[in-house]
Amino acid sequence: MTDYTAPLADMRFALREIAGIAEIAALPGCEQASDDLVDAVLEEAGKLAGGVLAPLNRAGDEQGSRLENGVVRTPEGFKEAYRHYVEGGWNALPFAPEHGGQGLPIAVATAVAEMWNAANMSFALCPLLNVGAVEALTAHGSPEQQRLYLPKLISGEWTGTMNLTEPQAGSDVGALRTRAVREGEHYRIAGQKIFITYGEHDMAENIVHLVLARLPDAPPGTKGISLFLVPKFMVGTDGSLGQRNDVRCVSLEHKLGIHASPTCVLAYGDNGGAIGFLVGEENRGMECMFTMMNNARLNVGLQGVAIAERAYQQARDFARQRVQGRPVTAKAAGAYPIIHHPDVRRMLLLMRAQTEAMRALAYYAAGAIDRARHHPEDAARERQQRRVDLLIPAVKAWCTDLGVEIASLGVQVHGGMGFIEETGAAQHLRDARIAPIYEGTNGIQANDLVGRKLLRDRGAATGELIADMRATERALANKPGDDLAALAQPLAAALDAVEEATAWMVEHGESDPPRTLAGAVPYLKQLGTVAGGWLMAKSALAARRRLAAGAGDAQFLSAKIATAVFFAEHFLPQAPALLPAIRGGATVTGFDLELL
Amino acid sequence: MTDYTAPLADMRFALREIAGIAEIAALPGCEQASDDLVDAVLEEAGKLAGGVLAPLNRAGDEQGSRLENGVVRTPEGFKEAYRHYVEGGWNALPFAPEHGGQGLPIAVATAVAEMWNAANMSFALCPLLNVGAVEALTAHGSPEQQRLYLPKLISGEWTGTMNLTEPQAGSDVGALRTRAVREGEHYRIAGQKIFITYGEHDMAENIVHLVLARLPDAPPGTKGISLFLVPKFMVGTDGSLGQRNDVRCVSLEHKLGIHASPTCVLAYGDNGGAIGFLVGEENRGMECMFTMMNNARLNVGLQGVAIAERAYQQARDFARQRVQGRPVTAKAAGAYPIIHHPDVRRMLLLMRAQTEAMRALAYYAAGAIDRARHHPEDAARERQQRRVDLLIPAVKAWCTDLGVEIASLGVQVHGGMGFIEETGAAQHLRDARIAPIYEGTNGIQANDLVGRKLLRDRGAATGELIADMRATERALANKPGDDLAALAQPLAAALDAVEEATAWMVEHGESDPPRTLAGAVPYLKQLGTVAGGWLMAKSALAARRRLAAGAGDAQFLSAKIATAVFFAEHFLPQAPALLPAIRGGATVTGFDLELL
Repeated sequence: MTDYTAPLADMRFALREIAGIAEIAALPGCEQASDDLVDAVLEEAGKLAGGVLAPLNRAGDEQGSRLENGVVRTPEGFKEAYRHYVEGGWNALPFAPEHGGQGLPIAVATAVAEMWNAANMSFALCPLLNVGAVEALTAHGSPEQQRLYLPKLISGEWTGTMNLTEPQAGSDVGALRTRAVREGEHYRIAGQKIFITYGEHDMAENIVHLVLARLPDAPPGTKGISLFLVPKFMVGTDGSLGQRNDVRCVSLEHKLGIHASPTCVLAYGDNGGAIGFLVGEENRGMECMFTMMNNARLNVGLQGVAIAERAYQQARDFARQRVQGRPVTAKAAGAYPIIHHPDVRRMLLLMRAQTEAMRALAYYAAGAIDRARHHPEDAARERQQRRVDLLIPAVKAWCTDLGVEIASLGVQVHGGMGFIEETGAAQHLRDARIAPIYEGTNGIQANDLVGRKLLRDRGAATGELIADMRATERALANKPGDDLAALAQPLAAALDAVEEATAWMVEHGESDPPRTLAGAVPYLKQLGTVAGGWLMAKSALAARRRLAAGAGDAQFLSAKIATAVFFAEHFLPQAPALLPAIRGGATVTGFDLELL
Repeated sequence: MTDYTAPLADMRFALREIAGIAEIAALPGCEQASDDLVDAVLEEAGKLAGGVLAPLNRAGDEQGSRLENGVVRTPEGFKEAYRHYVEGGWNALPFAPEHGGQGLPIAVATAVAEMWNAANMSFALCPLLNVGAVEALTAHGSPEQQRLYLPKLISGEWTGTMNLTEPQAGSDVGALRTRAVREGEHYRIAGQKIFITYGEHDMAENIVHLVLARLPDAPPGTKGISLFLVPKFMVGTDGSLGQRNDVRCVSLEHKLGIHASPTCVLAYGDNGGAIGFLVGEENRGMECMFTMMNNARLNVGLQGVAIAERAYQQARDFARQRVQGRPVTAKAAGAYPIIHHPDVRRMLLLMRAQTEAMRALAYYAAGAIDRARHHPEDAARERQQRRVDLLIPAVKAWCTDLGVEIASLGVQVHGGMGFIEETGAAQHLRDARIAPIYEGTNGIQANDLVGRKLLRDRGAATGELIADMRATERALANKPGDDLAALAQPLAAALDAVEEATAWMVEHGESDPPRTLAGAVPYLKQLGTVAGGWLMAKSALAARRRLAAGAGDAQFLSAKIATAVFFAEHFLPQAPALLPAIRGGATVTGFDLELL
C-alpha cells in the first residue's frame, strides 16, 4: 500500500519534450547526457528509490530521529540507506567534475531528486541541504576551502547544512544575532540556531555547517551578515578529521511531519566559541545565502511534486483494491473497486493532472538552469537566467501549495482509512505541510516574484514568458478538427488574464506597494496555474505529434492528451477568476487591524 | 496562544440577521427564545467553552484516549469537564421538553455546538453522536424505549453512539454483516463494528449503542437492515443499571487527529450475543439511520466552521505577537508584528471571511430546520424542509472542506512555528481533516445533493433558493452610490453560473448519470460558495441598515461590510470558473482506468 514506483515514462517525457534534454545535451559541458545514459540513470535511481528508500518511509515516520546524550540517531535503516546512496555515486550527480562531480545536467538531477523525495522526503532532505552547501562553496569558497571540503561534500561522505534561522530571525534573516569574532585566520562563532535540518545526525562522518553570523563591527540588518563554514569535526590540511568543534545539538523539534528528518536547535560557542572560516567576503553573506537558497527553492518545489506523486500512487492503488458499493457506471450488480466511482476517478485525475503539470514546470525550470549555465551565447544565457529567476518562486510556492492539497485529496480517496496512521496516506499530508513554509514561506516567494522578478524589469521577463506561451496557443488554434484545438480557448483566456494582471502589477507596483503585495500570492497562483496549463498543452501537442508519427507508447500518449484536457477544464479557468483577488489589495490593506 | 473566545458578536449577528431568530421565536413551541435568553445562553456557553473545554484541547491531543484492560480512559480532565457540561444542562438544550429537554431552537443549539467544537472538537464529538441517538429514538423508538432511555440521553448522563461501519461496509452501508437473531422480546446481536466514536469511554455511567444489523431472513442490501438499541449495561424497568451486555471495545485506532476522541472497534456477541432491542420496524433501519445522520451532517459541517474559527483566532493572536521584519506599510524603521504584512493580513481575511460565510450558512440551515418543524402552515413547513434537504449536504461538505483549508492557512500564518506541534496550530489541521470523511464522505454528500436533492425535483428546490438569492442581488443593485452596489455584479455573475450549472445537471442527470456525478463535487462547491457569498451580501445589507439606524457596534458592522466585499473578490468569481469542471464529466468518465 505504501509502495513507490518511479513514474519513469512521464519523467522521460517531461525531460525530452518539456526540459528539452536533447538540446541541453548539445550544449558544451553537457555532452554525456545522451538518451541512453539518461534512461539508465533514471532506471537505476528508480530502483534505489523504490527498493531501498521507500520501504523506510513509514517506519522512519513512526520512529523519528532521536537525541540521546547529544547524539542524534536516525531511524533504523537510514544510515545503511545513506551508505548505499553515497556508494552508488548518486550524491555527485549534478556537480562539476573538477571536484569529483558527475556533471550531469540539472534537469536530470531534478528528475532523480524527485524520486528521492517521493520515496522518502525525510531522507531526501539530507542531500537537499548538502546541495546548497556545495553550491555556496563552489561559488564563494576559497580554493583551499574547495579543495578540503568540496570532494567530500560532493561524494556525500560529509553532509552540509544551512544555518540561517534564529528564534527572533525567521523570514527576517537580517535580525540574526549569532556573533563571529576574528581570531587570526579563523573566527569564533557563538549563538543559537534553530530549525537546522540534519544539523546533527549519524549518517556521515562529518557535518559542514554553513552559518550566517554577524561581526562585532558589522552594519545592522542584512548588510552586516557574513557566511562561515563551521565543521562539526575540524579538518586537517590533509583532510583528516581532528577535534570536535564547539557546536552541539541541544534539542530536536516535535513536528507535524518529516519525523525522520532531525530538525535541530544548535548551540554554537558554549565552550569558548566554535571555530569558523569565512566564506566569501565579510558582510556579503546574504549573496552566498541566495546562492544556497535558489537551488534549495527549486528542490523544495520539487518536494511538492514528489509528495503529490507518492500520494497519487498510494490513492490509486487503494482505489483499485478497495471494494465498496456499486458505481453508477456498473452494468452488473455487486460491489466494485472504488476506482469505478466517478467521483473517485475525478479525485485521482485532479491528483494526476496537477502532478504532471508541476513536474513539467519544475523540469522546465531545471532545463532553463542548464541553459543559463551552459549556453554558448551570452544573450541566450541571460534570457534563460531571466526565465529561471522568474520561475523559481513559482515552482517553489505553486508546487508546494498543491503538494499539500494533493496529499489531502489522497487522504480523502481513502475514506475513513485515510485518517488511520497505519495506512500511510496521512503521513504524506503531514510531510507535505512543511514545504510551503521552509526555504522562504510561500508569501515570501510571492513577494520575491512581484517585488523583485516582475517589478524590477517592469514585466519584461514575464512578457517573454507570455510570448512563448502565446506561441503554444497559436499552435493549438492551428489544429482545426483536432480535439486539441479545444485547448486553445481556455489557454487564451488564461493568458489574457495573466497579461492583465501583470500590467496591473506593473502599473501599481511603484505607487502602491502594499496593494500589489497583498495580491502577490494570488498572482503567483495565477502564474503557476497558467504556466502549468501551458506546459500540459505543450505536452499534448508533443503527444499528438508522436502519435501521428507512430512513435512511443500510444496509451501513455493518449492519456497525456486526456490529462491536458482535464487540466484545462479544472484549472485554467481559475486564472481569470483570480483577477479580482489580485487587484483587491485595497480591501486587504484597508481592513482595520483592530477589527481582525 | 491556544485560547478560544466564543465570537459572540458574530454569532448573535448571524442568529438575528441570517437565521432570523426573532421570527423563529414567534413560532409555536419556540417562544422562550427571546433575545435576552439567547444572549444569556450564548454568554454562559462561551464561558464553559473558553474556560473549561478549550484548555483541555492540547493536552487531550497529546495524551489521547487509551484502552487499558478493556476500559477506555479519556484524557485528564475530560471526565470532570463532561460532568460540568451535563450538570449545566447543556446537553438538553435542543431537545423536546416532554423528555426533559429545554426545547430551545436548533439555531441556538447550533451556535452553542459551534462553541463546543471550536473549544475542543474531540470532546464535542461525544454529545454530537448523542444527538443522533436522541433523534433516532424520538422519531422511531417505542414509548417504553423513550421512557427508559431518552431522559438520560437528553440529560447527558448516558451517551449514545452510532454503529454503522464495518470493515467491508463503509460508504456502502448495505454491505454490513452484523447479525441479529430474534430471542423473545429482544434480539441477540453479533458482529464487529469499526470507527465507533466514543464507542467506549469513562465519562458516563452507561452507553446506548444504536446498531445497524441484519436479520437472518432479511433481504440483501440496504433493504435488509434493521436498527437495534444495545445498552452497554442492561437497564431495568425502573431505570436501574444491571448486567454488562456482550459488547466490548477491542481496540482504538491511531489517527491523524482527534486523538482524545476514542475511535473504537466494538465486538458484539463474543459471549453468546449482545442483547438488543429493535428500534422502529424490522428491515427499516436505513430510515432511522438517515434520521440520525441528517442532524449529524449539519453538526459535522459545523465542525468545519468551528475549527476554522479556532484556527483563525490562534493565527490572528500569533500574528499580533510575532515580531518579524519591516512591513512595506511601515513608516518608521524597525521590526513589526507580522499582522502588518499585507500577505499575512490577506491570509487572516481569507480565514475570517470564509468562517463568517460558513457560519452564516450553517445557522441559516439550522433556522430552516426550526421553521420546518414549527411553522404553523403546511406549505411553509414543506418549503423550509426542501431548503433544509438541499442545504444539509452543502453545509456538511463545503464547510468541512474549507475547515481543512483554513486550518492549513492557520499553520501557514505561523511560519516555521506552525509545523511545531507545541504551537497547537497543526492540531487544528489534523483534527479538521476527519470532517470531510465521516458522516458520509464529501463525495457522498455531493452525490446526495445532485442525485437526490437536485434531480428528484428537477431543480425546483434549487430554483426557490436561487430566487431568494436574486432578491438580495436586486436589493444590492438598488443602492446606487452605496459601496454595496459593487457586490451586485459578482453575485449576479455567480448566480448566473449556478443557474447554468443547475440547468445542465437537470438536463443530463437522467440520460448520463456518470457524467453528472463526476461533476457533483464541483457543483456542490459552486453552490456552497454562492450561498456563502449570498449570505455575506445579505449580512452586509443588514449591517448597512443598522449603521444607518445608528444601532449596534459601528466597528463590527463596518468590518462585516468589508469582509463581505473581500469574500466577493476572493470567492464569488470561483463560481463561474467551476462551470467547465461541473460539465467536464465526460473527460473523467472517458479516462481509461488502466492508464491511471
